[in-house]
Parts: sequence; C-alpha cells; structure tokens
Amino acid sequence: MKAEIITVGTEILLGDIVNTNSQYLAKELASLGIDVYYQSSVGDNENRLLQSFKESLKRSDIVITTGGLGPTNDDITKEVACKYFDKELELHKPSWDKIEFFFNKLGIEITENNKKQAYFPKDSIILQNKNGTAPGVVLEKNEKIIIVLPGPPKEMKSMFENEVKPYLQKLTDSVLVSKTLRAFGIGESTLEDKIIDLIQNQTNPTIAPYVGDMEVRLRVMAKAKTEKEGQELIEPVVKNIKDRVGQYIYAEGDTSIEEVVSKMLVEKNMTIATAESCTGGLVSATLINYPGISSVFMEGCVTYSNEAKIMRLGVKEETLEKYGAVSEETAREMAEGIARNFDTNIGLSTTGVAGPEGGTKEKPVGLVYVGIYINGKTTVKKYAFNGDRQGIRLRATKNLLNDLRVQLLEL
Amino acid sequence: MKAEIITVGTEILLGDIVNTNSQYLAKELASLGIDVYYQSSVGDNENRLLQSFKESLKRSDIVITTGGLGPTNDDITKEVACKYFDKELELHKPSWDKIEFFFNKLGIEITENNKKQAYFPKDSIILQNKNGTAPGVVLEKNEKIIIVLPGPPKEMKSMFENEVKPYLQKLTDSVLVSKTLRAFGIGESTLEDKIIDLIQNQTNPTIAPYVGDMEVRLRVMAKAKTEKEGQELIEPVVKNIKDRVGQYIYAEGDTSIEEVVSKMLVEKNMTIATAESCTGGLVSATLINYPGISSVFMEGCVTYSNEAKIMRLGVKEETLEKYGAVSEETAREMAEGIARNFDTNIGLSTTGVAGPEGGTKEKPVGLVYVGIYINGKTTVKKYAFNGDRQGIRLRATKNLLNDLRVQLLEL
Repeated sequence: MKAEIITVGTEILLGDIVNTNSQYLAKELASLGIDVYYQSSVGDNENRLLQSFKESLKRSDIVITTGGLGPTNDDITKEVACKYFDKELELHKPSWDKIEFFFNKLGIEITENNKKQAYFPKDSIILQNKNGTAPGVVLEKNEKIIIVLPGPPKEMKSMFENEVKPYLQKLTDSVLVSKTLRAFGIGESTLEDKIIDLIQNQTNPTIAPYVGDMEVRLRVMAKAKTEKEGQELIEPVVKNIKDRVGQYIYAEGDTSIEEVVSKMLVEKNMTIATAESCTGGLVSATLINYPGISSVFMEGCVTYSNEAKIMRLGVKEETLEKYGAVSEETAREMAEGIARNFDTNIGLSTTGVAGPEGGTKEKPVGLVYVGIYINGKTTVKKYAFNGDRQGIRLRATKNLLNDLRVQLLEL
Repeated sequence: MKAEIITVGTEILLGDIVNTNSQYLAKELASLGIDVYYQSSVGDNENRLLQSFKESLKRSDIVITTGGLGPTNDDITKEVACKYFDKELELHKPSWDKIEFFFNKLGIEITENNKKQAYFPKDSIILQNKNGTAPGVVLEKNEKIIIVLPGPPKEMKSMFENEVKPYLQKLTDSVLVSKTLRAFGIGESTLEDKIIDLIQNQTNPTIAPYVGDMEVRLRVMAKAKTEKEGQELIEPVVKNIKDRVGQYIYAEGDTSIEEVVSKMLVEKNMTIATAESCTGGLVSATLINYPGISSVFMEGCVTYSNEAKIMRLGVKEETLEKYGAVSEETAREMAEGIARNFDTNIGLSTTGVAGPEGGTKEKPVGLVYVGIYINGKTTVKKYAFNGDRQGIRLRATKNLLNDLRVQLLEL
C-alpha cells in the first residue's frame, strides 16, 4: 500500500516554518508498513491543489494532507479534496455543536465563517479534534482515499494517533516493527564498520545507522504479520549489536541521556550537585528535565566569574592564577568543591572556552574540561569540540552526562 | 520566475530526519523574489526522480535539489539530472584533485567510488563545497535549470550562499526585502486585531503575522527593484506598526530575547545573578548564550531543594513553611537573596510546579512565580502556563527575561 503526504500552506512554501508534519507522518506511515515514495508541499491554491491530488492519487492509494482547515476563506484543503472526489458538503450538526461549545467555553464570540469547519460530505468519516476546532475527515472513492488533517502539529498528531492510525491499521496486513538504539561517543562510520557484516547480511530486519542530535542511532526494523512476530525478529539482532558495541549504546527509542543518568542516580540513591562555568546552567537544566531527579539533585552553581568559583566552590586563587579558569586543576577543584558544599556523593563541573571570542593558541575555542567527583575520587576529561558557542556548550553537557553514565555503570 | 525544491533521500521519506533544507531554500528563494509553488521529496530512485524533474520543470523554470551526491551507488541525483538533460558526465580533473587533497589531509584512504563525485558535464557550472567532498552543479538546457546541491545542511547552505545566490540574483530583476518584528506577551489574534486595517490595506509591502516559538512574528515584506527601494517601502510600515504595538516588540530579525536583555545589562553596566528552582538553570544558561554577558553575570544558583534555598539564598524557613516553596514570598526572598550574595544590581528568581507530578488544586502544574529584584525594589509575577514540563520551564524562562526587559526599559 502506497501513501503520499501533501502539506498545504504558504508558510511552508515561504520557508516561515519547518515542515515537521511530514516527518511525523512519514515515520508513522513507515511503522505501519505503508510505503511513502513522495512528499510534497503546495500553497492554499485551488488549481495547484487539485493538480497535486491528481498526480498523487495516480501514483498512490492514499493521500494525507495537513493544513488549510482554518475558518477563513484561504483555507480550502477540505473543499478542494471534496471537489476532487466530486462530493457535496453539508452542515454536520454534531460538529457544529462542538465548535459552539468550544467557543463558548473560551468566551470567544463565534462568527459565521466558523461554520465552515462543520461542513462535511454525508458519506465521510469525521475525525475529532481534541486540541482545536477543526475536525479532520477521511474521504473515500473508487478505492482511493484522501485523509484531511489540521496543520497545527499538536492537533494533527493526536488526531492521527487516535483516529487515523486505527483506520489505516485495518487496511494493511503487515506491520513494521522497529527499535532504535542510541549510541554516544562513537562516530557513524566507526560504528557502521564494527557491524558492517550485520548490516549487509540482514534483509528482515534491516539495520540502518543515521546521525542524530550529537549521536548515532541504529534503527533495526522488521516487516511482519504481527507486532509480536516483528519483535521476535528484532530481538536477536539487537542482542547481536549490543554484544559488539554495547558500551556506546546508552538507550533505546526516545529515552534521553538525562533520563538514563537520572534514573541511575535515583536507583543508586546518589546525591548530586553541579558547578558550571561555560555551560552556564545547561547541565543542571538538562538533569532537571527529568522530574524524578528532585530526590537526589541538591544544588547547582553557575560560577561564571572567578570570584564565584572561589567564593562558592572554594577553588584556590593560586589554582586560577597558575593554571587559569579553563584547566584540569580548576575543573577538579570545582567538582570537589560543589560536592563538599552539600556533602553530595557526586559533583560535576565544566569549564571551557565556548567562544566566539576568548580563544588563544594554548586554549582555543572549543576546549572544555569536565570534572566528575564520585565518592572521594575525581576524574577530569579534556575535550576539544567543534561548533558555535551553543553547540560547544551542548556537546560539553552531553559528553559530561555520558561520562557520568559510564562511571556509574562501573560502580 | 518560478522555482521548485526537490529534496532527495530515503531518510526524509522514512521520517528519519526533519527536512530543514526545504525551509532554508524556500526562505532564500522568497528573499530573491523567486516564487516557489511546490516543494517535494523523493527517494534515491531513478524513475521517480526522472518523473519529478519532468513534472517540476513543466511547471517551473528552476529546480533545486538537495541530497544524493554521496560517493556510493545509491547516490544518483547528479547522474539522473544529467540523464534528464541528456548530458554526458566526464572526469573534472580540478575537482578530483581537491577530493584527493581532502582525503589525504584527513589521512583517510581514498577509494575508487569517490571518483564519482568529480564527474560533471562539460558545459556545467561546478559549485565548490567548502565543508565536504561533493561539489554541486548547475545544469542549463533550453532555458530550464537544475541546480544540484549536497544534502548535509552545512555543506548545502554555504554552497547556496556563496555560489547559487549570486547566480540566481543575476537571473531575477526584482528583490523581496523583508523585516521580521518579534513580539512577546501578546497572542496572534490580539496582535492581528490591533493592526488589521494595516494588514488588509497593504499590498506592497505585505504584513503577515505568524506564530513562532512562544511568540508572534510580523513579517513586513516588499517587492522592489533594489534592496534600497525595498527598505524605503518597508520602513514607514514598520514605524506605523511600532507606534501601535511597540511595547510588545522586543527585537527584529534573528535577535533573541537574551541578546536584547544582555545588551541592555552590559550597556547599563548592571550586574546580575539568578536563583532558579523549577527552571533548573535555564535562565542562566539562556543569558549565557550571549557571549558578552560575562562582564555583568556574577552567579547563578539552582536551588532546587528547600535546603539549598535556605543555605544559598537565605530564604527563611518560616516562609517556606507558611507559604510553601512555590509562592510569591519565596520568589521574592530568592531574588533578594541572590542579589545580596554578590551585591548585584539585579536578582532573578523562579519557583513553580513544572509537573508532570506535584500539582495540587491550589498549586496546579504550570503555576510559576518569577521574581525580579532591581536596585532595592522587588516585583513578583504569577504565571499559569500550559504545556509539558519542558514547555512550562521554557515559558517561565522567556517570560522572566521579557519582564526584565520591560523593567529595564523603564529605568
């Protein structure tokens, strides 16, 4: 079964927004085992939209659109889809009641053009919108299907998840089951090299490495009759990969490094404090992304100035003078100092040159020391990162958290 | 002049990556006054790619592709584009020399398939790649143009900026000049309402509001013969908008709120320190995004626990007991306490319920107090944010920085 995604809207054509809807839908359709060979974006223009429907449905069985469901006159996706299938629109009372209720609740005056959102063909499947006023719709004709979804990602995603996915599942007889392994501290080509024979000899499941946000991901994907059968195909391959490169794999699926680390800290009941210079609070902010951290996170200090490093962390003035603020020694004293403050098991520190100014030949932009104190023992690691100020700070944060993960594993 | 963007690659069709290339190119083409009515994505498949070229060049004068320029056999974009225009590829010695040089510098062994990247038609314009091995190419035939660019955004963007933009500028006789005003603390519809007459009566420049990342942006865009003429068309409209809603507009273009606030602090030479609970370091990390902040940023404290609030900030135990950690009183004592620590002009504080757990009827998830101490005077603002944990913390951070901006303006 083949599907295409058409995102509708001038804001995409002008580059005002990034088209995240296509990515979401593409991923979801892939996981349903539905092939997507084309994606396209068109404006709110009747002729061009009609033309797109024509071309897409010549090639594919299903077209999914997002956008153009608003109340104003330039929102025409639903109307054009109906025109293409030659279906008449009429007022759908239950939808109109819901829209009225929604507006009344918000205390906003309802206008005549809002009625537009409650018009649907008689024989269509109306899709509830839990996060907005515009319902979506499934239109079917001659074994071709157009699914019209709203543009705002929050509305579109919950509608897809709750109503479109079950609808599509009924149409397909196979599922794609996948698991993504997230690796940190290893490059894409090196990782690929270590498992190249697995990648090349696998057809079902397939193994695909790709570069994610400062990390490499491995997607293991199987086509199967059922979810269970797919899992059974995947598991031995995942195990095989982990046997080879397990030390780099910190998580599966959508689990973040901070979640992994925070869970380890809470499980081991190890208290933690952070002392940050160049990262400026990113390490603590990242850890605190994970709600459960509160039982072990004691304190974070952003000691950007030398004065704060001395006063807050007890870094020695002579250390700063002799080695400088960006040095192994300072990172060490920062990590130990912050742990001493609240008598925590763990103290983390960062100090570096995030740029764009301030680099020297000895200490260039990108040089970062990260310190980890754990129960009396301190290790400091030196990094030379590429990238802009923000990138260097993010890399420092992620590497520090991964280093902590590795050390916690060894405890 | 009409152009289309075709992004090539299975990783887009599978939803593995977000298609940011299309957005970048769409924005750039719009600013050149080149209309983009379609964008599409296809896989690395010869027939489908040929079909896409055919359809796109029927509708448009120019097609720009990204992706599929790698050294492996499944990278075929350049080859298919040449096939479509019936052009033969031959080895381009200077390009091959560069690729060899690049590999030698990295100490990587060069393989035969790397040669593929140095093949071009004789009459083509070869585009240098400053950030990778694959050159791009401009192919022309019968007044139609295909521009083939690499997929990695870093390579593609610098190639576009340095070589494609000047090439396209020569082809067009008009430019689109635009200015984006960034507004905070006002909803899209309210903002639109206040300038609806301007929006409706303007044709050149046009005014378009759109929702950005927790803010509303207004794009004023003029079509003109020259950049200068465009600026002259825009300026009076921008002034008119600012006269009406200037208090909400914190910046123009790509300027961030932290840059605006940090610059004000540095200019006024006002020192600052932060005390964060629910935001966990996001406020300090955001301020420190701006490199110049170091001269005024003294200290940041992440006092997530009550103990830290007492020890670090001198928040009274009885305040925490009587009003709770999430309260106006605690926010006030936090802001005053952190300013007292290093005797700074300004102290900022945040305390709230970021969720997903921990909400009560009196203090629901999303309740955040932000405190601002400035030279002896403290104000605390109460917010009720929607969203998930991360969203609530980002909103708190941005609102606090905007509140500080407004207060600094009044000094």
